[in-house]
Amino acid sequence: MKRDVYLDDKPWEQALDEYIKYLDEIGALDPGKPEVIKAEEALGRVTAGPIYAASSSPHYHASAMDGVAVRSIDTFGASETTPKQLKMGEQAVMVDTGDPIPEGFDSVIMIEDVHFVSEDVIEITSAAAPWQHVRVIGEDVVATEMILPGNHVIRPVDIGGMLAGGAAEIPVHPRPRVAILPTGTELVQPGKKELKPGDIIEYNSRVLGGCIKEWGGQPVRWDITIDDYELLKDQVLKAVKESDIVVINAGSSAGREDYTADLVRELGKVITHGVATKPGKPVILGEVEGKPVVGVPGYPVSAVLACQLFVKPLVYKKLGTVPPAVPKTTATISRKLVTPIGVEEFVRVKLGKVGSKTIATPISRGAGLIMTMVRADGILRVPRNIEGYQAGETVEVELMRSMEEIDETTVVIGSHDIALDILANYLRKMYPQATLSSAHVGSLGGLSALKRGEAHCAGSHLLDEETGEYNIPYIKRLLPDKDIILVNLVYREQGLIVAKGNPKNIKGLADLTRSDVSFVNRQRGAGTRILLDFKLKELGIDPAEIHGYQHDEYTHMAVAAAVASGSADAGLGIKAAAKALDLEFIPVVEERYDLCIPAEYFNKPVIQRILNVIAMPEFKQHVENLGGYDLRDCGKIMWRQGDE
Amino acid sequence: MKRDVYLDDKPWEQALDEYIKYLDEIGALDPGKPEVIKAEEALGRVTAGPIYAASSSPHYHASAMDGVAVRSIDTFGASETTPKQLKMGEQAVMVDTGDPIPEGFDSVIMIEDVHFVSEDVIEITSAAAPWQHVRVIGEDVVATEMILPGNHVIRPVDIGGMLAGGAAEIPVHPRPRVAILPTGTELVQPGKKELKPGDIIEYNSRVLGGCIKEWGGQPVRWDITIDDYELLKDQVLKAVKESDIVVINAGSSAGREDYTADLVRELGKVITHGVATKPGKPVILGEVEGKPVVGVPGYPVSAVLACQLFVKPLVYKKLGTVPPAVPKTTATISRKLVTPIGVEEFVRVKLGKVGSKTIATPISRGAGLIMTMVRADGILRVPRNIEGYQAGETVEVELMRSMEEIDETTVVIGSHDIALDILANYLRKMYPQATLSSAHVGSLGGLSALKRGEAHCAGSHLLDEETGEYNIPYIKRLLPDKDIILVNLVYREQGLIVAKGNPKNIKGLADLTRSDVSFVNRQRGAGTRILLDFKLKELGIDPAEIHGYQHDEYTHMAVAAAVASGSADAGLGIKAAAKALDLEFIPVVEERYDLCIPAEYFNKPVIQRILNVIAMPEFKQHVENLGGYDLRDCGKIMWRQGDE
Repeated sequence: MKRDVYLDDKPWEQALDEYIKYLDEIGALDPGKPEVIKAEEALGRVTAGPIYAASSSPHYHASAMDGVAVRSIDTFGASETTPKQLKMGEQAVMVDTGDPIPEGFDSVIMIEDVHFVSEDVIEITSAAAPWQHVRVIGEDVVATEMILPGNHVIRPVDIGGMLAGGAAEIPVHPRPRVAILPTGTELVQPGKKELKPGDIIEYNSRVLGGCIKEWGGQPVRWDITIDDYELLKDQVLKAVKESDIVVINAGSSAGREDYTADLVRELGKVITHGVATKPGKPVILGEVEGKPVVGVPGYPVSAVLACQLFVKPLVYKKLGTVPPAVPKTTATISRKLVTPIGVEEFVRVKLGKVGSKTIATPISRGAGLIMTMVRADGILRVPRNIEGYQAGETVEVELMRSMEEIDETTVVIGSHDIALDILANYLRKMYPQATLSSAHVGSLGGLSALKRGEAHCAGSHLLDEETGEYNIPYIKRLLPDKDIILVNLVYREQGLIVAKGNPKNIKGLADLTRSDVSFVNRQRGAGTRILLDFKLKELGIDPAEIHGYQHDEYTHMAVAAAVASGSADAGLGIKAAAKALDLEFIPVVEERYDLCIPAEYFNKPVIQRILNVIAMPEFKQHVENLGGYDLRDCGKIMWRQGDE
Repeated sequence: MKRDVYLDDKPWEQALDEYIKYLDEIGALDPGKPEVIKAEEALGRVTAGPIYAASSSPHYHASAMDGVAVRSIDTFGASETTPKQLKMGEQAVMVDTGDPIPEGFDSVIMIEDVHFVSEDVIEITSAAAPWQHVRVIGEDVVATEMILPGNHVIRPVDIGGMLAGGAAEIPVHPRPRVAILPTGTELVQPGKKELKPGDIIEYNSRVLGGCIKEWGGQPVRWDITIDDYELLKDQVLKAVKESDIVVINAGSSAGREDYTADLVRELGKVITHGVATKPGKPVILGEVEGKPVVGVPGYPVSAVLACQLFVKPLVYKKLGTVPPAVPKTTATISRKLVTPIGVEEFVRVKLGKVGSKTIATPISRGAGLIMTMVRADGILRVPRNIEGYQAGETVEVELMRSMEEIDETTVVIGSHDIALDILANYLRKMYPQATLSSAHVGSLGGLSALKRGEAHCAGSHLLDEETGEYNIPYIKRLLPDKDIILVNLVYREQGLIVAKGNPKNIKGLADLTRSDVSFVNRQRGAGTRILLDFKLKELGIDPAEIHGYQHDEYTHMAVAAAVASGSADAGLGIKAAAKALDLEFIPVVEERYDLCIPAEYFNKPVIQRILNVIAMPEFKQHVENLGGYDLRDCGKIMWRQGDE
């Protein structure tokens, strides 16, 4: 496989402009032959031309009231003192709302204002103005009137307008057909039962398909093409015949984009290969047989961002419309962010409204992590010409969730516990508008976040080596000036997580010093690591004796995963993590896990909702069923620091 | 049909609260049994519970780069001065991105940093850190981790997260089935060829269906039920069995809601009948066999608003979510608006960004006019406790179009000409982001709007009686201090519009004084009326001699419609209006129709785009094809008043 190392490095806006200009010139972005569909099925479609009324509405003079139709001229002069009598059938005719006004009649008197003298004669006490209570022909829509302009996205009320004007069938732009070709020998379809090492679940085409649907296009997902140049060539040639736009998802191999670029170059033209963005750099903007062919990288985040930058504008162009503006917010960035100069980086951030500030916290930047897109609340685009931001700078963030949702989000930063996930779920159930956002940075990290005003609440299980007390000494030391209310969430068992069947026969912490045992540790600042150090000290064990003490992981689950994969023999963690990956668990100690809540937020809905949820018996039962938990103090205020 | 005159008159919020409380108590708003669907088909659906990962991603330690996998321990000590050699196959194994790391290996060296000494031996010049360039098991998703909480609306990236975590099938809340029952003997289905007087096209169910789809429900449109109590009763009983929510659209007869209320009362319970809103007052909030049954009024605007107020929250409740916030803007109201006290009125408004101000102009308030909803840019809710607004007051408007679209809208107020519709259409075609909004208030009304700063441009054909000159004398008189640029749009024939075959044998304006001829006039301030008065004066005709001189209509099409319906024998108007309704046209005079443009907007995109469009040959050809138009000066600057 040869390498095309001289990738372009254009600003993406320039690459897109050039690409659209090229495609426009060859007519590749024209909407194509209109489709004629029923107006009533046209929701969300785009008019291919102006829609004119075929008939008027009303198409006859209609009564706007229940009453009697009259000739206004017959009523002139009627008053309280000089009532007028009209003969039913001749001078007055009963009409209901919507009934036609009889020929020659021009006015309606409301039934409430009519006095029946006999069955045949009515009396009125005021004159009827011409055309009063009459909906004249064309009052709503006049035949030949333009109801909608072309290139208009049809809303529910527009359907009403068209049908009222007799436009029952209308021309709309066809939905652009976008073929998505996943490529890669290692790909397997979702739902495969036994995954082999090296298998990669093909989900990018599903994500991109969802995006294209949201943009108004029609995604057509192709079967996986294995890595075979001739085979892929055949598929691309077939795809450009059947589709308006072709997206080739290049698999995850770094060399594979070049292979795709060569193929596009052989079959047509590569306009750009490589843009100055991160992720998404090795995108290919090409054309084959008059159709746009876009090669997007294999990593999921790169694939989504590349499609948003380069496929989205093509879909909208073909529909004769423009993409809706992406909602944005300004936020304060919570920590220093370093980005490469010369490259526009798309950084995923969590957003939280804490106090009066919206805080943006960058999350993991790996292009291979789809969960960063799932968890992100927004995208921070860092311009090419700067090297990042200092903590506290104001930035603009493109929203991935609505600002209302973010405003109603409880931000929990600190140590992770599975009970928080369960809490998140019950919270949403009980309060549909509410969300729990939890970031896992360890117990000490959580207290720091409280100090910086970036969280409503921190999850913490910090054992004080001297007093054997949980959390309180740390809060006193780290947050001396803050009013903090400490609420217990759970007690939980911490223990050694070992492989199934415990093949190394590990019985306790003392075994960690054995030369045949490798350990996986938690990062500095994690409550679990502090607990380990406390226990090792109690037992008189020197950490240097433990093989793997320097091997850090950031969550209980990552520790469990390391054991499951065989890269370590043991790690300290919670029982639920061991249970989740079907591993063995050797209890070491019961510890206390509290929520540290600044008093200023305690009575706000973001916290009160949380407290209401953890008071629910269903919640407690659910957590206890996980095993290794005790909720005897759940919801109890353990301690309070501050002004009372 | 008996009348239930004692309608409730509750604030709608109170009625809704009571209704939801009632329905919640009987469990009518629970989401119901989850549906299990493929995650890849779940776009826009709502999770019925938390989605947990069934497997980890990656599920094996994977190479993050193309390179060689090594044991990091074998590389320690390697440097530029002390390179290390590793044996391929034993100490080093070639891996591509995504390949599994062989058992016992823990690190990857990028291919760029590897020097091949021979086929079997590589040389490295720096040590490899443990786990460098390795995507460890669970780096993205760890088995058992919560990927999504319950009651979460699934986005494209969420599909990726679920599939990455092996959650290929997931439980979602069923889409609430909403039965829509149109009722009324006068209703006919859209597309009916020959409409009889009294026929009303049934389009409300289509509009409501579109709304329900947008809210995430599943609309089920029922056949039209004629006005027959027992028949409707059968249908409602059937509908509550098959659906989660039933909407009865009560037809347009004012008495019919009572009939529906009686029926709901007989079959179940009426919680509220009547709320203090306009339109939408006679809404019925009921329950039959445990299902919500909502009766909405027959007029289309009332029907839509009532559904937005009362059905939308039910649909979202059943989905476990909350409706997205309606975007709002503040605007300056352009004219006095009087509303009834004690009633919350929903006033449709046009919005325009003219200069720095967003101007809200109320449009027609008829509940029967669906086109008011099509044309509206927003809804102004006037609270119950006030009687309206003075011109110039600041109001909050709920947006029906995006603010970006409104910012890009050219606001044309003044006399209407069909060429403006054609202009609107070409504009959208040439500039997809642009919109033309035209309000038809006559030529003088247009100049007043310019004076008040409410329009970018006014369409005007005002003939000065003394000089015989168009527009200029009026601008000098009415806008003496404003820089105005006058650009010609068209010359057009004005003439008498008469019935087909000209049965009254009308030859010219002189015939209007005949006693057997009735006339339909344009409103005061309309250029056409001024033209008429000028011509009558020339001919020495006294307007008092013309039968119907006082009968006003507001548009050319309304005049033509009056002639077509027989309510008048003749009216003065443009040829295109006569042609549109298949009427006869007797030319009277050619007049000039100009665009009056304040110089301050002339170089802004909102005006420059318009000038570019009217310069297009296709536009000119299209207008000339209508007949009665001459575009010899189209786009020409006719005159300029002001600072040069």
